[in-house]
Amino acid sequence: MDDLSSKREACGIFGVYGAENPADLIYLGLYALQHRGQESAGIVVSDGTSVVAHKGMGLAPDVFKNGLPANMKGHLGIGHVRYSTTGSSMLKNAQPFLVEQIDRAFALGHNGNIVNISELRRKLEARGAIFQTSTDSELIAHLVLHKKGSLEERLIKAFDELKGAWSLVMLTPDAILAARDPFGFRPLCIGRKGDAIIFASETCALDIIDAEYIRDVEPGELVIADHNGIRSIQGPRRSHSAMCIFEYIYFSRPDSMIFEHGVYQVRKQLGLQLALEAPVEGADVVVPMPASGNYAALGFSQGSGVPFEYGVIRNHYVGRTFIQPSSAIRNLGVRLKLNPVREILQDRKIVVIDDSIVRGTTSKLRTRALREAGAREIHMRISCPPIKFPCFYGVDFSSKGELIACSKTVEQICDFIGADSLAYLSLEGMFRAMPLPAKDFCSACFTGKYPVKVVDEYTKTCLECRTSECLHWP
Amino acid sequence: MDDLSSKREACGIFGVYGAENPADLIYLGLYALQHRGQESAGIVVSDGTSVVAHKGMGLAPDVFKNGLPANMKGHLGIGHVRYSTTGSSMLKNAQPFLVEQIDRAFALGHNGNIVNISELRRKLEARGAIFQTSTDSELIAHLVLHKKGSLEERLIKAFDELKGAWSLVMLTPDAILAARDPFGFRPLCIGRKGDAIIFASETCALDIIDAEYIRDVEPGELVIADHNGIRSIQGPRRSHSAMCIFEYIYFSRPDSMIFEHGVYQVRKQLGLQLALEAPVEGADVVVPMPASGNYAALGFSQGSGVPFEYGVIRNHYVGRTFIQPSSAIRNLGVRLKLNPVREILQDRKIVVIDDSIVRGTTSKLRTRALREAGAREIHMRISCPPIKFPCFYGVDFSSKGELIACSKTVEQICDFIGADSLAYLSLEGMFRAMPLPAKDFCSACFTGKYPVKVVDEYTKTCLECRTSECLHWP
Amino acid sequence: MDDLSSKREACGIFGVYGAENPADLIYLGLYALQHRGQESAGIVVSDGTSVVAHKGMGLAPDVFKNGLPANMKGHLGIGHVRYSTTGSSMLKNAQPFLVEQIDRAFALGHNGNIVNISELRRKLEARGAIFQTSTDSELIAHLVLHKKGSLEERLIKAFDELKGAWSLVMLTPDAILAARDPFGFRPLCIGRKGDAIIFASETCALDIIDAEYIRDVEPGELVIADHNGIRSIQGPRRSHSAMCIFEYIYFSRPDSMIFEHGVYQVRKQLGLQLALEAPVEGADVVVPMPASGNYAALGFSQGSGVPFEYGVIRNHYVGRTFIQPSSAIRNLGVRLKLNPVREILQDRKIVVIDDSIVRGTTSKLRTRALREAGAREIHMRISCPPIKFPCFYGVDFSSKGELIACSKTVEQICDFIGADSLAYLSLEGMFRAMPLPAKDFCSACFTGKYPVKVVDEYTKTCLECRTSECLHWP
Amino acid sequence: MDDLSSKREACGIFGVYGAENPADLIYLGLYALQHRGQESAGIVVSDGTSVVAHKGMGLAPDVFKNGLPANMKGHLGIGHVRYSTTGSSMLKNAQPFLVEQIDRAFALGHNGNIVNISELRRKLEARGAIFQTSTDSELIAHLVLHKKGSLEERLIKAFDELKGAWSLVMLTPDAILAARDPFGFRPLCIGRKGDAIIFASETCALDIIDAEYIRDVEPGELVIADHNGIRSIQGPRRSHSAMCIFEYIYFSRPDSMIFEHGVYQVRKQLGLQLALEAPVEGADVVVPMPASGNYAALGFSQGSGVPFEYGVIRNHYVGRTFIQPSSAIRNLGVRLKLNPVREILQDRKIVVIDDSIVRGTTSKLRTRALREAGAREIHMRISCPPIKFPCFYGVDFSSKGELIACSKTVEQICDFIGADSLAYLSLEGMFRAMPLPAKDFCSACFTGKYPVKVVDEYTKTCLECRTSECLHWP
Repeated sequence: MDDLSSKREACGIFGVYGAENPADLIYLGLYALQHRGQESAGIVVSDGTSVVAHKGMGLAPDVFKNGLPANMKGHLGIGHVRYSTTGSSMLKNAQPFLVEQIDRAFALGHNGNIVNISELRRKLEARGAIFQTSTDSELIAHLVLHKKGSLEERLIKAFDELKGAWSLVMLTPDAILAARDPFGFRPLCIGRKGDAIIFASETCALDIIDAEYIRDVEPGELVIADHNGIRSIQGPRRSHSAMCIFEYIYFSRPDSMIFEHGVYQVRKQLGLQLALEAPVEGADVVVPMPASGNYAALGFSQGSGVPFEYGVIRNHYVGRTFIQPSSAIRNLGVRLKLNPVREILQDRKIVVIDDSIVRGTTSKLRTRALREAGAREIHMRISCPPIKFPCFYGVDFSSKGELIACSKTVEQICDFIGADSLAYLSLEGMFRAMPLPAKDFCSACFTGKYPVKVVDEYTKTCLECRTSECLHWP
Repeated sequence: MDDLSSKREACGIFGVYGAENPADLIYLGLYALQHRGQESAGIVVSDGTSVVAHKGMGLAPDVFKNGLPANMKGHLGIGHVRYSTTGSSMLKNAQPFLVEQIDRAFALGHNGNIVNISELRRKLEARGAIFQTSTDSELIAHLVLHKKGSLEERLIKAFDELKGAWSLVMLTPDAILAARDPFGFRPLCIGRKGDAIIFASETCALDIIDAEYIRDVEPGELVIADHNGIRSIQGPRRSHSAMCIFEYIYFSRPDSMIFEHGVYQVRKQLGLQLALEAPVEGADVVVPMPASGNYAALGFSQGSGVPFEYGVIRNHYVGRTFIQPSSAIRNLGVRLKLNPVREILQDRKIVVIDDSIVRGTTSKLRTRALREAGAREIHMRISCPPIKFPCFYGVDFSSKGELIACSKTVEQICDFIGADSLAYLSLEGMFRAMPLPAKDFCSACFTGKYPVKVVDEYTKTCLECRTSECLHWP
Repeated sequence: MDDLSSKREACGIFGVYGAENPADLIYLGLYALQHRGQESAGIVVSDGTSVVAHKGMGLAPDVFKNGLPANMKGHLGIGHVRYSTTGSSMLKNAQPFLVEQIDRAFALGHNGNIVNISELRRKLEARGAIFQTSTDSELIAHLVLHKKGSLEERLIKAFDELKGAWSLVMLTPDAILAARDPFGFRPLCIGRKGDAIIFASETCALDIIDAEYIRDVEPGELVIADHNGIRSIQGPRRSHSAMCIFEYIYFSRPDSMIFEHGVYQVRKQLGLQLALEAPVEGADVVVPMPASGNYAALGFSQGSGVPFEYGVIRNHYVGRTFIQPSSAIRNLGVRLKLNPVREILQDRKIVVIDDSIVRGTTSKLRTRALREAGAREIHMRISCPPIKFPCFYGVDFSSKGELIACSKTVEQICDFIGADSLAYLSLEGMFRAMPLPAKDFCSACFTGKYPVKVVDEYTKTCLECRTSECLHWP
Repeated sequence: MDDLSSKREACGIFGVYGAENPADLIYLGLYALQHRGQESAGIVVSDGTSVVAHKGMGLAPDVFKNGLPANMKGHLGIGHVRYSTTGSSMLKNAQPFLVEQIDRAFALGHNGNIVNISELRRKLEARGAIFQTSTDSELIAHLVLHKKGSLEERLIKAFDELKGAWSLVMLTPDAILAARDPFGFRPLCIGRKGDAIIFASETCALDIIDAEYIRDVEPGELVIADHNGIRSIQGPRRSHSAMCIFEYIYFSRPDSMIFEHGVYQVRKQLGLQLALEAPVEGADVVVPMPASGNYAALGFSQGSGVPFEYGVIRNHYVGRTFIQPSSAIRNLGVRLKLNPVREILQDRKIVVIDDSIVRGTTSKLRTRALREAGAREIHMRISCPPIKFPCFYGVDFSSKGELIACSKTVEQICDFIGADSLAYLSLEGMFRAMPLPAKDFCSACFTGKYPVKVVDEYTKTCLECRTSECLHWP
């Protein structure tokens, strides 16, 4: 899977308290988290009294191409990059979501997906609440501000009613708050740079500003950073977590620590495990599908002793807007991003490592291109099990179209893409490669076992068939 | 060296005769050649009678973001991507250069650098020629159109007067012509897609349109493609060539064939040779500086048996416009692009492979970042000899600022960047890694031995000192 | 006063029910109402079920420069052009304001100013309402949606609590509603085009779409247009109205009917009255300050028998963005817009007609320019009394800076601007020129007598001194 | 005719020598001359040595929306606004045209039309000249630079070969030159601001920078301004001139002096003359078609005693880009710009004054709109004779489509547009209103008598029929 073109990522969030130049730090943090959302970006900063926001469509460098607003001064702030999993793609849906109450501004940035949104929203609307968007973040803001008590009390009450996945950074004029749902679906870490406290989706956003990684916000925890320093309220927590295993497999940057463990090594372990489970005898080279297959391919190579080579080269300019020149030439598309290297592939028996097969059509085209470049045998190895079930906690698999693994056996898929052999990593193998126990992961996309019940009817359709009568549905 | 940020590349050229949709093919070809020039892009297409051109500043996808012009129809055309080595960065300097004579349009795209431009231009101006730019391409057009005879005769005569490096694609309303200077400084290849003839700077531009690579345009050769097919006029050719060795080391895409040999394997050979010449005993990992060090690092790893690891991760969104948020934070710059991976580096003795050290300041920052990420020992290995002399044939080393290798010994450089050891590949080692004899390369940037005498006074300065009294000058 | 540069205008609103192409009609209507607001523009359209909105910063042609959105289909809609009198200039403040309730969308566009906004907003926030802007329109939406009952009942209840000026167009998925405050401060008219019902701030917006003018929405009236046709609910109405007299003097387009009478003739009457009150014996020509002085000048000419001439010509390209080239040349500014015609002015005794003197600095520069162009005597006549008091009902006089008439006598002003004589129209003369009785106008800007008490403290400052201890304050 | 929408104007030129801030003055001058060309704008400035240029598509404020380039310093410069009469609308055709010779830069801006361009260009191309555009200005530059001798000598020689209309401003690194063809078709005046010498198409460009009007450049004269002051070379001059009479009737701004006489009074005289020739008995009001009919209407009113009224109001925002919302509503177009005022027209017998009838379709729609607004009788009066012949000297009548007066009698036109009567000013009447003798005007568009023979075949077509066999052709 190509990590730039497939925008499945939910969102990236960032917060800072106690810095001289919070907007600069947030901007850099969003730049590091850009892979988690390319649709919109926004920053909200406070100087203790007045709150300044700027949001826009596109990447962070596009949104701030004229520089950071001159009046964006203060010592605390939050930022957000977004790819929509709920709500359509419009500026008004961009986050952080800012509430301009007369006495207290309140802003929040959200990563995840609330599954009982319709139910909660109807309840709030019946009490006079006005909704201007269809986003989770507006719902959370309403829920919080309709409660009574201190902000912390309101948050704890609101979290009681929310179902689903939420990692949150929140801003009041003089404090930053961060929270994670009781299952800890999505990551959220805490760092420190001098006296400043940082919150971020991934540690790569700490690295870019040279901040030190302290620990993760715990599942169910609410952390408050203000002029008194940092304090924590541990809310209800389940007996086990449900951390998204796909963060390790594909989402997060390889240089991040996620759930307190390094992603790079997990991916290499997936490759090593794959080499054990599905070796290819007599293979000449191991070739990664760039860029997401690189680490598992290194692991496979080290585990099998088969040399690692860049058999497919990626155009560095991919990722920019590319206007398809004309329909006549559209079928050349596959070569825009990736070019097989004949001198590596010619007459070779190759092992191709990728992290997933989605609809299979791209894999089919790539397999054909590898063969045209001279590969004698092509053995495809996938570094996780087949994805068969939709995600309701913040990952937009459905935008990828129908998943081939929903309707075809591994053998049929191998046949479809035209490989000489195909193997996926087993569920057990995947868990073995992980640094945490299986029970603490959400792996519903592989198993169909959903940690939080999904009540909204929009989820009652099979990802494959888009119908509720489908037999594939668990 | 990072291949996106350092825009030293001269230009990329592309031509096609006999296709149904030449603009589409050219656009894709320029997309594949984008690494050779990011400043401007342009396409000229003819239907045998009328000639349509479109040029603009920026990358090809930016220039054609509204699609290819509807009237850009025909069966032949040329394209160009540019980074200026002569002339400043303005739209009027964008190529292809188009002459709108009443009876015959003439367009050309040029890669290289003419060294006797001032002399030729004064001569032409004295005869009434009007220059609207300071580009080589306008000079060549004038020189050609001031001659008498058929276009081919004029070209041959013009080539007699030109000194320096030129790879050219040219368009008349009904033919495409391609030519290379007698020394063959810059590459130019010929391909075929169905009945269409293609010319391109690199074979990766053939691959993207699924065209077959035939051969290179020979040094001194003029190739004409028109309705009679393809024919060739072999002009004067030197006893040996002077092909740019830097195309193999850094410029060209690794998936291209250059001078009829694959770039990828050359770079791996450079790494293998480096492992022989400058091994690091007891090293734990080989780490490439992404992305240009990847192939030499693979070679070094395979040659030395030290495992290859991605110790430094590159942000995929680098390459887009990045507005520095504020001066306060500018020194974090080095981490915008590259992030060291602690879990790979911690307590390790590492070998870092890069393809050059320019001013040394970036290398110094990176070395420090590697150490902060826990590296115990850092051994820097460079896959070519030190660059000490300016290039007058199309490579803009001078834009990189002063080269540290001009004024410091290897030991001093090692000290400056703070590595535990530093070694460059030897001149002999470099030639040993090459697929062609040393005598057929221009390696003046390493040796100061210039194949074509440089007469213009602007060249009479030392790259290091920018003064003509410098002792470094050969 | 120059009607393009001084953006004092509150807003323009437009609504249509029962047309095939409501977005087209709204767009044209906004184009005709553009003089009432240049800051942002927006359109909301419904097809009975789904509601589509598009808003943006700038003039209507800028906001819709890529055409009307393809999905903006239906048979009803509203539109708005805005110049902010409350809330700063940002996209989120652009109107129509759209509420996306799950079951019922609700949108509104507002012209006027609510004076008890802070009080109402605190009350609503205490009940959990979330405000995302500081605009009147969001307040009105909240107030309406917090009430119980049918939409009509809610509106009537909400109007009871609102104090100040409001002309409103509102949209539900299947109806358009229009309302005017009990004093009728701002205009709002009803028209018909075939079967479609139109609402608009001015009749010029009916003319542009070839619709017929029916009547005005009455002060205190709520008009509903839906599939049952049009019906009316007459809310509480004061014994007399308080229609803004400045709509006749300056705001509205001369070709509009306002408060059911033509603006053009009122302006001419003001000029005729001025000729009676303040004649200039022996004058050679009457010269209007373009473009707003044209009609009063015609009246003055016809009343006095002094010939009308264009002594000052207006650059037609004024109104576009003009970047001041450099500070060195900024004092030439006055000539950018207006150029005196020497052949008309040379050695003449001239009467200059304008509709106001604001700070006096522009008038001073223009008087000097007229003298330099040869005028022998300059007699300034103003077609209304001096403006001395701020407006709290939707006119942003304060943005004009300090009004000279607050602190200087007419004699002192004459002296300041360097005219040979200066006269303003009297209060009585102004009312005599009006087509409606004096008691039905708000003329607080001249008299300081405010029809609706202003409770918010932000209004307790003198327009001149910006302090609450000022003696100028009534 | 509406002076913003009909872009018939050739060009505006401006030059300055000896100012501290030439770019500022040129920018303002172009702003004043904007009505002469809206397609592109450009400025070239020199400091005696280096020459800096900036050009772009659109109005001057658009081209310089980011301010004047910081390096545009010096003491002399020229500027140009363009509407193409030759060459299509592209950036490369924007003027001033700049030649970057090694030793001497040379730039020029041109207003007019060269009629023997093809002949001259073939001659130059045969001698090796390279043309990059199809503009007159490039041709003139080539012609000048191919001559021998001093620049002045070359210019005089070049002018001998040029046929047609040219008003020119030219720049060398240290001098400004201005010239006018021997017939003086197009205007060009000289002004002074302090020590600086100014050249401009119209005096309104002197007024805007507060410069004093000295005199016109004479037909056939070459004026040079440099550090020695100003000097003149009088070239060949015809026994009589051929100044464009249409500059008085429509082109120039009313506040300009053209050919040393004020435009405003000429237009009023045309109206007075029209009142004498074609009175309307019992008329109630005289109504101008805004804005170009205003002055003739004032003259008609003063000559006839019939009151002048603004019966038609112009939308001030016309002139900006207006995207037609949809085809369904396109026929409302006429009301976008102009709105009839019912209270002025109702039951009145009106005289409508316009400066031309082009295709008649717009006049027909407007006449119908006036009638719908209640006018009882409509008597159309045109302030010049019918235009029947194409202009080859810089006015693009042909872009207006077919002229109705080519194929219809006055009676038929009256019938077509639906007026109660129609009268044009007579040829004699027009000349009587002029401040110069008839023999010194070019009035070929009315008479078909062309002062300079037109040799290029592209002119051998009738404006009406676009065929060479047409009987309308003289």
